[in-house]
Amino acid sequence: MKVSLSRRYRFAASHRLHSAEFDADTNRRMYGKCDSPYGHGHNYTLEVTFSGPIQLSTGMIVNLGELDPFVEREVIEVFDHRYLNEEIAEFHDRVPTTENLAREIFRRLRDFPGAKLEGVRIEETSKNSFEYRGEESGAAHR
Amino acid sequence: MKVSLSRRYRFAASHRLHSAEFDADTNRRMYGKCDSPYGHGHNYTLEVTFSGPIQLSTGMIVNLGELDPFVEREVIEVFDHRYLNEEIAEFHDRVPTTENLAREIFRRLRDFPGAKLEGVRIEETSKNSFEYRGEESGAAHR
Amino acid sequence: MKVSLSRRYRFAASHRLHSAEFDADTNRRMYGKCDSPYGHGHNYTLEVTFSGPIQLSTGMIVNLGELDPFVEREVIEVFDHRYLNEEIAEFHDRVPTTENLAREIFRRLRDFPGAKLEGVRIEETSKNSFEYRGEESGAAHR
Amino acid sequence: MKVSLSRRYRFAASHRLHSAEFDADTNRRMYGKCDSPYGHGHNYTLEVTFSGPIQLSTGMIVNLGELDPFVEREVIEVFDHRYLNEEIAEFHDRVPTTENLAREIFRRLRDFPGAKLEGVRIEETSKNSFEYRGEESGAAHR
Amino acid sequence: MKVSLSRRYRFAASHRLHSAEFDADTNRRMYGKCDSPYGHGHNYTLEVTFSGPIQLSTGMIVNLGELDPFVEREVIEVFDHRYLNEEIAEFHDRVPTTENLAREIFRRLRDFPGAKLEGVRIEETSKNSFEYRGEESGAAHR
Amino acid sequence: MKVSLSRRYRFAASHRLHSAEFDADTNRRMYGKCDSPYGHGHNYTLEVTFSGPIQLSTGMIVNLGELDPFVEREVIEVFDHRYLNEEIAEFHDRVPTTENLAREIFRRLRDFPGAKLEGVRIEETSKNSFEYRGEESGAAHR
Repeated sequence: MKVSLSRRYRFAASHRLHSAEFDADTNRRMYGKCDSPYGHGHNYTLEVTFSGPIQLSTGMIVNLGELDPFVEREVIEVFDHRYLNEEIAEFHDRVPTTENLAREIFRRLRDFPGAKLEGVRIEETSKNSFEYRGEESGAAHR
Repeated sequence: MKVSLSRRYRFAASHRLHSAEFDADTNRRMYGKCDSPYGHGHNYTLEVTFSGPIQLSTGMIVNLGELDPFVEREVIEVFDHRYLNEEIAEFHDRVPTTENLAREIFRRLRDFPGAKLEGVRIEETSKNSFEYRGEESGAAHR
Repeated sequence: MKVSLSRRYRFAASHRLHSAEFDADTNRRMYGKCDSPYGHGHNYTLEVTFSGPIQLSTGMIVNLGELDPFVEREVIEVFDHRYLNEEIAEFHDRVPTTENLAREIFRRLRDFPGAKLEGVRIEETSKNSFEYRGEESGAAHR
Repeated sequence: MKVSLSRRYRFAASHRLHSAEFDADTNRRMYGKCDSPYGHGHNYTLEVTFSGPIQLSTGMIVNLGELDPFVEREVIEVFDHRYLNEEIAEFHDRVPTTENLAREIFRRLRDFPGAKLEGVRIEETSKNSFEYRGEESGAAHR
Repeated sequence: MKVSLSRRYRFAASHRLHSAEFDADTNRRMYGKCDSPYGHGHNYTLEVTFSGPIQLSTGMIVNLGELDPFVEREVIEVFDHRYLNEEIAEFHDRVPTTENLAREIFRRLRDFPGAKLEGVRIEETSKNSFEYRGEESGAAHR
Repeated sequence: MKVSLSRRYRFAASHRLHSAEFDADTNRRMYGKCDSPYGHGHNYTLEVTFSGPIQLSTGMIVNLGELDPFVEREVIEVFDHRYLNEEIAEFHDRVPTTENLAREIFRRLRDFPGAKLEGVRIEETSKNSFEYRGEESGAAHR
């Protein structure tokens, strides 16, 4: 009787795609205008998916009254209205691509007690989304 | 040559989240304003996914001229413009959460002849969706 | 560290659903108004999903600067603003249903170097979408 | 230098369309399944539009830090998760159509200090929306 | 007490943008790939807006039970699943641009009894929409 | 025979809301987390509306083949992937609120030859949009 819940959260942030491993030309060729020196930003839509059995007494797999404050504290307060490159320690030595952001958010949410984190999906723009489902299962099972 | 078709249907209904197992305070703490005594409502978006081989002669896996009346009769006519707690027998002794609604709709659709029901997904609001994929496969395979 | 990227592209095309194997009455019964003799059209939204490890130096699984021209050349230039029945060789002897279109687009994209094509999903209308994930994995794993 | 701001809020509620002026048959003919005896519900999306000059020092026409608590108190807390027919005094003797709801919400918001309320628009479903712009200007000016 | 109702309908059609007044090169320069010889298609979203006073007894400005069959007969049955250039008389000597389509649909709906047609808006793609509000008022009042 | 065309463009940028006229505390109270020192970003959706008569020979009010490069050059190339506070001269001494951004974009587009600019509307997030329709007409005519 396993059901999954997907819940959406939104945050706005800015980033610059630029790798210290490459010279200026390579960065420009690799990241195009995303390498713009002062950064740029997005409205990120985060969709987190948890699964579990339906609890007979409550009819729910997870209480949103517990999930929302957890995600708020672990993710939204951390990333919302931030310049990812400067203000998030994780991105001091990693490029803040949405791929890396998805992995970092997964890491912050995977220990939520009471339901299994299946994956996180981030829409960076209306054209792009990225999904990370943890080490074992992988995107291949999507 | 297996392809899956996802088709969306919409219905509007009302419900109250309240469990006979709990006292008033616990219900309020558990369900928050969803325990509001006269109920409240949603526009539910139902997405059903069926899979099967592409039939060589028709190029289709399932004929929508057969699927639509089936879903209409089994789901839409039953739930649309209803107060789930009072008018749906299934919810006389189960809390009409969207988790339980997903499972009940899956049960009503799984015997559709001619294609395999892979899962049902219900968007309750623009923030929440719930998915049920049957006993064996489970959400883990999503 | 496998992440998947889904990217959306749009194209507009027209088609007629009609099978040479059936007589006029059967075609009408099978395809309804989609059998309308001069064809009709859709805005197709194509979502392609690729997966792979995050490359440590770039933080990306695939460079959109390489993916976009590939999809543009293999799919958009081929199908955009075309009458599928007449202008696409593949559909001279196959009905251009969205099921068959999904399979054909998968075939055209599966050899993209540098990331694994997980699947293609096409929204034909706001109610309908079709997904093809290749022979081995199949829709059952979705 | 007049600019307008439109801001969206969401609430879920239930209602029954039924007029005490008509007999049962007329009500059924008039309102169809919206007359269903136990009520049904919707996710209402409210879009409020305010206009005013851009204030030179702040660059804003209205501070969302003031608007949001005002709308929250005057509208969301009042209507969210309610059965409009029973719990809202205004609808004890008026049918809680979205037309009447739009007018009532306009009345509750028109005295917001610091910017002019231009109109309220409510999406009842993905197919229907209703707009009220006050007595003088009317929808003709839309 | 004037309120406006906007209601959405959808239809799929195909068209070719090509003017008999121009030679082949000019047509290509003018319409680009929309001049593609076999036509192409769109999912058109039509939003019609009617206004009127709220009727005291019903709480409505127009009964959808009357509006829907009217729009269905006058517009949807006429244009849905058609090749506009060939199957719609109006477009035998006019280019079936969405501008002309908006005007033609306005003409077909303006005599709806019981509420004033304020305008019609057609979304041709997710990027483009066209609005026609009749001779007198014009788009300037929008 | 006046018709209006609305066309959508998208760009991503970052900004910080902070006024040199106020001290740190006032800035924080006024702009909340939008005053975050390193800036943050958005996916901006720009909708521009032009009106004019339908040209008899072409059936169009404006040729998108002319409009798109104009908007691209005047707006998208200027603002896309920029930090508005630092990289746009206009915002060196004005707060880059979306109100001011709407006015600036209107100014850049109003001399488009061949159709009248009716207004520009910018969605900053899924909750907020701002519209500017020029000096004379104002938002009241919307």
